Amino acid sequence: MTSSPERRLRDVVASVVPPDAGAMSEARARQRQLTKPAGSLGVLEDASVALCGIQGVCPPRRLSRPVVAVFAGDHGVHAQGVTPWPQEVTAAMVANFRAGGAAVNVLARQMGADVVVVDMGVAADLVPGPDLLDRKIRWGTSDLAVGPAMSREEAESGILAGFEVAGALVDAGHDVLLTGDMGIANTTPSAALVAALTGAEPADVTGRGTGIDDTVHARKVQVVGAALAARPVTADDPVATLASVGGFEHAGLAGFVLGAAARGVPVILDGVIAGAAALVAQALAPDAVGYCFAGHRSVEPGHGVALARLGLRPLVDLDLRLGEGTGAVLAFPLVEAAGAILREMATFDAAGVAHKDQGS
Amino acid sequence: MTSSPERRLRDVVASVVPPDAGAMSEARARQRQLTKPAGSLGVLEDASVALCGIQGVCPPRRLSRPVVAVFAGDHGVHAQGVTPWPQEVTAAMVANFRAGGAAVNVLARQMGADVVVVDMGVAADLVPGPDLLDRKIRWGTSDLAVGPAMSREEAESGILAGFEVAGALVDAGHDVLLTGDMGIANTTPSAALVAALTGAEPADVTGRGTGIDDTVHARKVQVVGAALAARPVTADDPVATLASVGGFEHAGLAGFVLGAAARGVPVILDGVIAGAAALVAQALAPDAVGYCFAGHRSVEPGHGVALARLGLRPLVDLDLRLGEGTGAVLAFPLVEAAGAILREMATFDAAGVAHKDQGS
Repeated sequence: MTSSPERRLRDVVASVVPPDAGAMSEARARQRQLTKPAGSLGVLEDASVALCGIQGVCPPRRLSRPVVAVFAGDHGVHAQGVTPWPQEVTAAMVANFRAGGAAVNVLARQMGADVVVVDMGVAADLVPGPDLLDRKIRWGTSDLAVGPAMSREEAESGILAGFEVAGALVDAGHDVLLTGDMGIANTTPSAALVAALTGAEPADVTGRGTGIDDTVHARKVQVVGAALAARPVTADDPVATLASVGGFEHAGLAGFVLGAAARGVPVILDGVIAGAAALVAQALAPDAVGYCFAGHRSVEPGHGVALARLGLRPLVDLDLRLGEGTGAVLAFPLVEAAGAILREMATFDAAGVAHKDQGS
Repeated sequence: MTSSPERRLRDVVASVVPPDAGAMSEARARQRQLTKPAGSLGVLEDASVALCGIQGVCPPRRLSRPVVAVFAGDHGVHAQGVTPWPQEVTAAMVANFRAGGAAVNVLARQMGADVVVVDMGVAADLVPGPDLLDRKIRWGTSDLAVGPAMSREEAESGILAGFEVAGALVDAGHDVLLTGDMGIANTTPSAALVAALTGAEPADVTGRGTGIDDTVHARKVQVVGAALAARPVTADDPVATLASVGGFEHAGLAGFVLGAAARGVPVILDGVIAGAAALVAQALAPDAVGYCFAGHRSVEPGHGVALARLGLRPLVDLDLRLGEGTGAVLAFPLVEAAGAILREMATFDAAGVAHKDQGS
């Protein structure tokens, strides 16, 4: 007997426990013994501590099997003219990912990461294959400018699908999960989610996506503001918020974050779409954030707001605004570097190097 | 017959020509054809253009043989109490680099980079070996608080040594050079060089190095200010500036940058020591900067000032303040990613993806 999505979601949330505090304090102590001035590796030291907490061991294990899961979906709000790109580009880019020609593929090859596409709701029939996980809820969300983007049950099902994808990838041997996303118009629901879940003003979190002019931008801000005014939503009910103004890929990504946390595996977030989804995961299970690294800071204004609420510092800050997972993949070697430092560096005693204030 | 250092330095400067403008404009055109919104890869797109200019070809060749050259030296100004670390730590850390236990070794292994140490003036006899390039000028500079740190001829010889090291590494097959440095007290001459070559105030460029308290910091600012007041130096005579307040590793690194430029090979700069040295290289041969990538932004205040004068945007910004080349090594995959994007990404036409504003 299958239990209801609502009940299964409660179990998912309960499966997320805080990172291991003991391993984290071991990591802090070990950092102080390494042959470098205390704190001189800055953010990498914090990342190494987080990694130990996530894996529950110090030093952390090598991250050797990264995978980028590109959650793809279409958006009814495309009809409002919030982007100059035709909706068909979502399916065309999915084909490009599967052919290995997109930016995320190039970077993933360089960094030794696999790429899988998760169809959460692309508005097209996609060719089946082992490189495509079919979790399609339907052909795109409803237009959030007109009514809820999806039903509450669809939101729950989307989260559960993402959770299961994370578990399946971990079962297949992947030891670090990276978020990717594709969905023409998906910065609009992202902005709405960030505004709803942080209380920020629509104008402060709505950006220019992959490239829009002032007129389209003004329309986008208006669409986000009107939807939130028509159907007030808050972090108190993140599933309702997701259903009202989110996207299917946001649902999948929120579940993916919860799945990584439940399995004790680090998840590297990409940009504003993942950030908005992580806010949903945080509202459901605050401890899930302890398993997240912010891969980068996007130029989308909503992303900075989301990162501030998540309390995550981005590892890469290079004015990227592409999505696909590109920022997460670029950050992967930095996360791995943090772990390698703890694992491989010599201690002062072992290397016979004098400490500060000692000697001569 | 060997010509004088002064004459050889003139030849070195003349060997630096601007990056290839044709390859750079090809790179810009190619970026616009790739399956992504124009400009969406931000700083990586600029880096890809720079890389094509440096190599003189578009798309750029893969960077497959990185090497970090750690230029090491000691500093007479150590006697002024500008650091809590004993001077012997320079030699001890050189031994640590050679044993593979330092942070830069760990990161270099991860990124597939070799590490070589260049002894420019460590105040100790070092054990010879193929992993140590002996270019020792003498056992540490003179105390810049008392008089010039080195003679003009020593400064010239140091630059020429670094230039030759770069050439030898390129001859050995390395296709990208990364700067590293080691020298207890070397943030003091770095601050002095940055102040002298940019006109900034000593207090604005003098930081806390690897960790000093307010009293030591105040002494350090005073030492830098007094040296510059006693022996006014400017960017008009960079060799005199280097001789007056620099270090042997700065001389070597300035030459290393010129050597990379002369050979058409990218050089990834580490932190404030490399930044100060690059200012010397820039003052000698402004076109050399076109061959440089700023690996990271250090927390040392002088580094930001140096980067602004160089006109370089740092790739990594993680509050590092270790040196050794750690920031350059962490940036290497980002530079390589920039090139891979141009080399491997599909074009809109090839992938059958509609452009913005086309289609439905």
